[in-house]
Amino acid sequence: MGEQRTVMPRRAIIIEYDGTDFCGWQLQPSVRTIQGELERAIALAAGHEGRIVLHGAGRTDSGVHARAQVAHFDSDCAHKPDTWRRAINYWLPDDVSVTAVREASQEFHARFSVERKTYVYSVIISGVERPLHRRFRIRCRRRPDVHSMNACARFIVGENDFAAFTASGADTESTVKTIFRSEWIEDGRFLSYLVEGDGFTYNMVRTLVGTMLEVGAGKASCEDFASALESKERIRAGPTAPAKGLMLTAIKYPKIIDPFREPGRKHGS
Amino acid sequence: MGEQRTVMPRRAIIIEYDGTDFCGWQLQPSVRTIQGELERAIALAAGHEGRIVLHGAGRTDSGVHARAQVAHFDSDCAHKPDTWRRAINYWLPDDVSVTAVREASQEFHARFSVERKTYVYSVIISGVERPLHRRFRIRCRRRPDVHSMNACARFIVGENDFAAFTASGADTESTVKTIFRSEWIEDGRFLSYLVEGDGFTYNMVRTLVGTMLEVGAGKASCEDFASALESKERIRAGPTAPAKGLMLTAIKYPKIIDPFREPGRKHGS
Repeated sequence: MGEQRTVMPRRAIIIEYDGTDFCGWQLQPSVRTIQGELERAIALAAGHEGRIVLHGAGRTDSGVHARAQVAHFDSDCAHKPDTWRRAINYWLPDDVSVTAVREASQEFHARFSVERKTYVYSVIISGVERPLHRRFRIRCRRRPDVHSMNACARFIVGENDFAAFTASGADTESTVKTIFRSEWIEDGRFLSYLVEGDGFTYNMVRTLVGTMLEVGAGKASCEDFASALESKERIRAGPTAPAKGLMLTAIKYPKIIDPFREPGRKHGS
Repeated sequence: MGEQRTVMPRRAIIIEYDGTDFCGWQLQPSVRTIQGELERAIALAAGHEGRIVLHGAGRTDSGVHARAQVAHFDSDCAHKPDTWRRAINYWLPDDVSVTAVREASQEFHARFSVERKTYVYSVIISGVERPLHRRFRIRCRRRPDVHSMNACARFIVGENDFAAFTASGADTESTVKTIFRSEWIEDGRFLSYLVEGDGFTYNMVRTLVGTMLEVGAGKASCEDFASALESKERIRAGPTAPAKGLMLTAIKYPKIIDPFREPGRKHGS
């Protein structure tokens, strides 16, 4: 028939969500997921009958939040970026929103093009319940020793095998990751762990946090932390910290394909 | 019988709450209120059969939040302040907590001793939905003219009759109030209105905000705002802004009776 296959235009989106009431990112039948809500809203915004597949930069677990998750989809619908944003948000519930839409090149893939990701884990260290912060921070009953937690945080900068901090049942992905930044930042009654890396294995940030909090509470030493990492055995590391303290805050792509790097444009916050 | 009436020791408490899922502060039968949850928890913490009456510094409406509401109660139960705090919090749901408890003198009354109150009203001005902030901020579709809003804000500093900014159906309290501080503070994608006064009439802050946002949107001028105030007629002012943007952030008492002013102690955040 000589039919010519045309390539559908690609759009990249930045998404913010409060993960509290979602069963994580990934589409699953009969539960509320971020991907599920977004695919439904995008199809409605496009006036589309069939499914529009959304490719996320990565899955986040049940209860984990995002200030700037990235995803892409392909559609023939000719909406301008800002029309897409408003149309998708019109169909979304109030705990997930698209904060930016850009046209993207076919070379851009939200997942495979990722260069770096940043997560922040947030803790209340005053010992007091804080209802205004309860959805996004866990609470320590006692003020931890931040100095020794930062010694652990610094120890993982560079390339390491994080097998000891990877939940079993994870996929076959390599557990060797490069960490560019890893530090605890104290701010009065709050404490935040900021970690930037080229990738993270399943439950890695939460297990690092859970283990460092044990060091901060005096239940383990920095040497225990270091030898757990070197052992590559999950049983040597500490508990997995609760999901609600974790937030995906930034994803970096190589400049030449990053749809959000156009000059004069801002994204995230 | 020559019975001697003894005075029960008084305790003052600071309370933080996310007002989203409450029908306001004031106790009402068969709905969820902050006073209701607190009185129930205090009685349980005291191991008490009857009601322990809690006197709040002021009522907040349905949906309004507090970072530092103040209240007092009298009880013979001999718990130390920190035991009270932990015992009360044990019985509270996670959207309301006691962040401090102090012993107070009989001269201290959470409501009648108030010297000043501070409220903050929070707005998202980027135009974009922000799920992480949706419980505590309203969203403006367009960036308002903050300069003219601040001209209005400055205009109410000093003593004024706020009849025009008082909801009808309010009690017989005077509508003359003194405002010590009134300003809009811009912080990137957010905008906050901070107002400190010796008191506020019913819906006063929300009506001031609703009217100033109309000025910021170009629907009214600073002169309209000023003449609305001078008219003392509610119909001349703008709409009442939504409850969810409003937060009670501080209450000041005269130093000599303030239970939270002990040297070396901190409160609030």
